[in-house]
Amino acid sequence: MAQEHVFTVIDKDATYTIGSPSGTTLLQALRQLGDLALEAPCGGNGSCGKCKVRILQGEVSSPQTEETHLLSAQELRGGIRLACRTYLLDGVDQQLVIATMHHTGTSQVMAAFTGGMPLENLRFHAQDIEIERSSAEDQRSQLARLMDEVAVHPALKSPRNLRHLQRTIGHTSIRCLMDQGKVVSILDPKEKAYGLSIDIGTTTVVVYLVELLNGAVVDYRAALNDQKRFGADVISRIEAVAGQPKGGLLLQHTIVRQLDKMAAELCQAHSIPTDSLIELCAVGNTTMLHLLLGVDPASIAVAPFTPVFTENLSCPVSQLGFTHISDTTLCVPGSIASYVGADITAGVLASGITRQTKPVLFLDIGTNGEIALWDGAQLYCCSSAAGPAFEGASILHGTGGITGAVSSVSWVKDEQGKPSIIYQTIGENIPIGICGSGIIDATAALLELGLVDETGAMLDSQEDGSQLIIATPAGNAFSIVSATDHPVYLTHKDVREVQLAKAAIAAGIRTLMYESGLSLDDLQAVVIAGGFGSFIDIGKAQRIGLLPPVDPGIISSVGNAAGKGAVLSLLDPTAYEAMEQIIHQARYIELSSSPQFMQYYIDEMTFPTEGFNTHG
Amino acid sequence: MAQEHVFTVIDKDATYTIGSPSGTTLLQALRQLGDLALEAPCGGNGSCGKCKVRILQGEVSSPQTEETHLLSAQELRGGIRLACRTYLLDGVDQQLVIATMHHTGTSQVMAAFTGGMPLENLRFHAQDIEIERSSAEDQRSQLARLMDEVAVHPALKSPRNLRHLQRTIGHTSIRCLMDQGKVVSILDPKEKAYGLSIDIGTTTVVVYLVELLNGAVVDYRAALNDQKRFGADVISRIEAVAGQPKGGLLLQHTIVRQLDKMAAELCQAHSIPTDSLIELCAVGNTTMLHLLLGVDPASIAVAPFTPVFTENLSCPVSQLGFTHISDTTLCVPGSIASYVGADITAGVLASGITRQTKPVLFLDIGTNGEIALWDGAQLYCCSSAAGPAFEGASILHGTGGITGAVSSVSWVKDEQGKPSIIYQTIGENIPIGICGSGIIDATAALLELGLVDETGAMLDSQEDGSQLIIATPAGNAFSIVSATDHPVYLTHKDVREVQLAKAAIAAGIRTLMYESGLSLDDLQAVVIAGGFGSFIDIGKAQRIGLLPPVDPGIISSVGNAAGKGAVLSLLDPTAYEAMEQIIHQARYIELSSSPQFMQYYIDEMTFPTEGFNTHG
Repeated sequence: MAQEHVFTVIDKDATYTIGSPSGTTLLQALRQLGDLALEAPCGGNGSCGKCKVRILQGEVSSPQTEETHLLSAQELRGGIRLACRTYLLDGVDQQLVIATMHHTGTSQVMAAFTGGMPLENLRFHAQDIEIERSSAEDQRSQLARLMDEVAVHPALKSPRNLRHLQRTIGHTSIRCLMDQGKVVSILDPKEKAYGLSIDIGTTTVVVYLVELLNGAVVDYRAALNDQKRFGADVISRIEAVAGQPKGGLLLQHTIVRQLDKMAAELCQAHSIPTDSLIELCAVGNTTMLHLLLGVDPASIAVAPFTPVFTENLSCPVSQLGFTHISDTTLCVPGSIASYVGADITAGVLASGITRQTKPVLFLDIGTNGEIALWDGAQLYCCSSAAGPAFEGASILHGTGGITGAVSSVSWVKDEQGKPSIIYQTIGENIPIGICGSGIIDATAALLELGLVDETGAMLDSQEDGSQLIIATPAGNAFSIVSATDHPVYLTHKDVREVQLAKAAIAAGIRTLMYESGLSLDDLQAVVIAGGFGSFIDIGKAQRIGLLPPVDPGIISSVGNAAGKGAVLSLLDPTAYEAMEQIIHQARYIELSSSPQFMQYYIDEMTFPTEGFNTHG
Repeated sequence: MAQEHVFTVIDKDATYTIGSPSGTTLLQALRQLGDLALEAPCGGNGSCGKCKVRILQGEVSSPQTEETHLLSAQELRGGIRLACRTYLLDGVDQQLVIATMHHTGTSQVMAAFTGGMPLENLRFHAQDIEIERSSAEDQRSQLARLMDEVAVHPALKSPRNLRHLQRTIGHTSIRCLMDQGKVVSILDPKEKAYGLSIDIGTTTVVVYLVELLNGAVVDYRAALNDQKRFGADVISRIEAVAGQPKGGLLLQHTIVRQLDKMAAELCQAHSIPTDSLIELCAVGNTTMLHLLLGVDPASIAVAPFTPVFTENLSCPVSQLGFTHISDTTLCVPGSIASYVGADITAGVLASGITRQTKPVLFLDIGTNGEIALWDGAQLYCCSSAAGPAFEGASILHGTGGITGAVSSVSWVKDEQGKPSIIYQTIGENIPIGICGSGIIDATAALLELGLVDETGAMLDSQEDGSQLIIATPAGNAFSIVSATDHPVYLTHKDVREVQLAKAAIAAGIRTLMYESGLSLDDLQAVVIAGGFGSFIDIGKAQRIGLLPPVDPGIISSVGNAAGKGAVLSLLDPTAYEAMEQIIHQARYIELSSSPQFMQYYIDEMTFPTEGFNTHG
């Protein structure tokens, strides 16, 4: 039997002592812990090089090939290792002490959304209901007195709401929160009513605090999804827990713990008792919603990609394991398919495209690129596995949109025609890596400077007169930041990742065009949802062939449309009905079995030669 | 600030170390603990003498007047104290160690009920539903596939049921549990489906394990209600936690913890995964149901006695704090009034009296006596505060129906006419006290032997030639058990308690007779529900005036009718509808404001002189 190995972990805010059998990896051991500053985008297969930890004391397994490849000699000398490739050893004397590595910067998550919410009516309103006074002869319950005066929602009969009702005993006027004419909750006099709208992205999580009676978004919290230490994309997370009994529940506990904490923090920051939270709405992709509910999403990962549910549903948050907030109802709008989730339903709702009479293209580019094309009557949808390149995960120096990430790259030429690179970082901090918008810019720069050809082949550093292509342990690479201790470059392998990612998106768009019989000229608008869309340079995204060659004037970014849809669910009395209508109008196209997609994908693998590809 | 006093508690099965501020009583401190062998029927006001503990080491406050009165000198010498009158002291050196006292006997709780359940149809049945096979082109969710074939109950969309549905992915035949034509749950092949029926009495708790597909009551567990350490009756429990923030939740945690454990034990004993529990039905009096749901019942205790709810409702058990069993739905049938709870609704259903065309009287005698009179069209109901005398709580040597309790008392006279007492104990154990049926018998014997007159006055020990009346520290008393180390006697004060209790019941019956315009002669049947009714000698209960002077042949005991009604709720497709009909037909009579009741109560305070009182 393997020896139990007890060791110490020094994290950002806390120190933990945990035990794990010898022979397990540090990553496996660390996954036991709650809120740990550790990412493993590749799911722990030694390919992404992100799960760095520092060994402060004690002995572990020797560095493996992947580590010598992905870590610099300096890092290895400094005790930095990849948690997924470092094993706990048997029979060591000195206790092991490790420290997590983390960027002190905060994550730049796009939580904002464009456009107001000009709602004629809000879904909720407060109303004082007069009830008859109790007497020895009339011992009807307080609930019966209320029900004799006004229609009540079934949710009013929850233990939590009955506790609120208890506080009104002896009163003959009860302040009720009405949801479309029915009492859903009891308010104390002057109590405000709040809801939370939750957008669970594979990468980022946003929780909005919404004041129900005036429709204001009071505040929000955004963070990287704590599930990231199980993998950057849904498939790696599913695989990371596959075969483990209760593996799905492990992922559930991770996200629930995070949401629970964010919700409680938001309430605390505004001195709102969590009892004033009336309803939560959570959107996310289909896998995230399965994980939220503790339902194993394994069948989503393999053909024929059957989800357990895509239907809208609701349950008390206690059923999911929330403990920091009062036991209110969480509602989940319906999803469209395994890879087109409720975040798209909500996003389409918020964007209003299905109320248009002319064709509109809707893009939500994240780890997956969800694409929807409205032709005026039907919503063609697909999901294209772009991979996490644009989220920085499969890119050697890639990073999320955190402070210090290179977010924009351009070039100027001097009088001799020698180009030099200009970059900006988020928060104007010292550069620590490159995020999605920077990756697109850098790729565009490589194409513009002729350092990469249309096939994606990079000049060799020996041949490059500009000195921008340098030799690195990872081969030829485009040097973006060189003058600091922490150089940032884009390798020739990174460029291949970008090619694959942009080809997947572009081919997905063309497949929907094909299915609908529309051409790019028919498009009235192209709407880009999601944080990513807000930060990219549209021209450069068109230059590398990620966005279609339409008039840039019709392309607009709407911010976090999914989050906006989740907010609307709390405010717009017609939201849920409208989302059901959207699902009803949706026609899902499975790309993996589409011959058109395969052909387009091959076509789109090359970069546009001059300006734009020609589409559809 | 009071010093935190840490001390050790040795209980039946475990040893605990707890802390409590100096100045608090041992009872207050011990209430923090879970399953403790400690009762405090009077709620801790020093009047019942039941909360005995033994001080094994360390110093506590000196014995108070109540203790010298209620404890024998021998007990006090042996370190026995009343937990409610013993205070933790400041500045003591030696650590305090106390032991709880407990009867090793198990509680004799009446869980059985009479009569089969000749149901034509069971509520639940299993059905294999064929669904269409998934394909890349048809990515409908598993739930959608099912919903396209068959109607589903909203409860199917719970996280737990979706987890069950997940296991059917890839199958084209799904074994469904149907509730009246709608799918409520997914079964594994060959999986059986179970439910739990719960009867929460103020004194006792019974949990029945029911097999849903064949209607069998597989097993049950019965126990004293763990809330008893907060008081014997509902009012003392309400008062024990009144003013404490979250006091109601403390009582909720106590009962939920107990039910959760009993449920898990039942499943374990029969190797049933708790995932196979489909539905729970809980009945109880209105206060017990408020406490189960964590709703403060304080308003039930004071005029005008308004309950927060009497309506039927349901919620997931996770919402109540169950953690040992899978997250299934708990249903609570409707109650009739503050003091006529869902246990009576369910009991009336089970007894079938409202299906009779002739008048029937229904009695459930516990701490409260709930009385219902069916006149063929309407159900007159009341609740009479009998007090806990018949449950042994306000009787000096009284005890519940546990092994060793004197349960039957009679007398014989020898040739000289000198009477001697014959008694039986439960389990034929050494007598340790006297329970309800024994108390009735003993009172009847006192009347028959002329040792107590119709006013309840007891002969003085000096005047009594039979030597059955003895002088005790508590005054004159009827000696029932004298030849053991543990004498059992019924004091003159105990007889007063019996008088008050029987008067309350008898006056309640007469009040309903008055309200309905019926006389005893009109009664077709008298149905006695509850464990108590099963154990008493009907003739002796009539002799003391507890039961009305009708032909004993029409009086029958139906056992735990409330429990049977809770079982029917799981089996009979018409049960909930029928219970709503019963509530609709019920007319509640508040006795505390009834002038008739007050008059009858005074009348009934005396014992019948010869044979029977004459009623109505």
